[in-house]
Amino acid sequence: RTLNEVLFFPSELACVEQVFNPSSPHFPSSCSPSCPLPHGVETSFSRLLRRILSATSSLDLCVFSFSNMDLRRAVLALQSKGVTIRVLTDKEYAAITGSQIGVLRKAGICVRCDTASVYMHHKFAVVDSRLLITGSLNWTLTAVQSNKENILITEEPELVQPFIQEFHRLWVDNDPA
Amino acid sequence: RTLNEVLFFPSELACVEQVFNPSSPHFPSSCSPSCPLPHGVETSFSRLLRRILSATSSLDLCVFSFSNMDLRRAVLALQSKGVTIRVLTDKEYAAITGSQIGVLRKAGICVRCDTASVYMHHKFAVVDSRLLITGSLNWTLTAVQSNKENILITEEPELVQPFIQEFHRLWVDNDPA
Ligand SMILES: [Zn+2]
Ligand SMILES: [Zn+2]
Repeated sequence: RTLNEVLFFPSELACVEQVFNPSSPHFPSSCSPSCPLPHGVETSFSRLLRRILSATSSLDLCVFSFSNMDLRRAVLALQSKGVTIRVLTDKEYAAITGSQIGVLRKAGICVRCDTASVYMHHKFAVVDSRLLITGSLNWTLTAVQSNKENILITEEPELVQPFIQEFHRLWVDNDPA
Repeated sequence: RTLNEVLFFPSELACVEQVFNPSSPHFPSSCSPSCPLPHGVETSFSRLLRRILSATSSLDLCVFSFSNMDLRRAVLALQSKGVTIRVLTDKEYAAITGSQIGVLRKAGICVRCDTASVYMHHKFAVVDSRLLITGSLNWTLTAVQSNKENILITEEPELVQPFIQEFHRLWVDNDPA
């Protein structure tokens, strides 16, 4: 059966420690005792994080704006597990205040910036060359918590394959070498 | 067979008169003799226009920014054919220079503005309650001609139905009455 899922935002606010530390689902030890957020709640955002964290071999990320700290944490967690990560982003937005692109670079993640277009406006990710995550949502806090946004998740090859090819094309086009 | 299609932008530049007037495919009479654009060429944008123009009963459009004149023409053409059109858009962006939302309103199309969120950032349309058109692309000229953008088109019910429900929810929530 082909996975198809749609998530809408803004997401309910809830603690996502359990997503990063699934062993103790309700009150993970890494969560501060004073954490004021609801626990044990599935939200659009926790579902999105789970899909990203499901990567076992590769994550190809093509995103206009990346400033969300939980999404940064997810990418760095994959990096620690040995998942091959490639990030393609917009040249201009990579440099704005709050952008996490520099942090990813310092962590050794391969990042390329699109300099050719007015905006590199995509917001998609491909997990393990199999699962497409795409939509209107930039990887920012405002997108997750405040805006009306959508994320579409699918394993349908007719939808996933064109995004894999487009990622490859953009990746090669923006080789700085 | 379920339709699944992905389009990438920027689109090649080509004349779209043939999309609006399919009777004479290469040099439609409505096209000026001095039209400098390529003719008889399928592009991402002409494919997008065809999908929108395929509506026979309804078009539900939920889009952050709408300034593109060809897309305006497509919506007005559907309106003339008697297709029921509902447009949900961002309050702030409906008022910016170049926005075509006012023109749609004057043509008698039912428009509602989202005032609650920071941004009503969706960019999706549902054709005849059956075909979903969604992606990163706003309905602007820059998005079509300059940015790196994607549009995903699908008839897969697991993907289409949640967008129909979300449109309904947002439509009711933003009833000005
Ligand atoms: Zn907590
Ligand atoms: Zn022409």
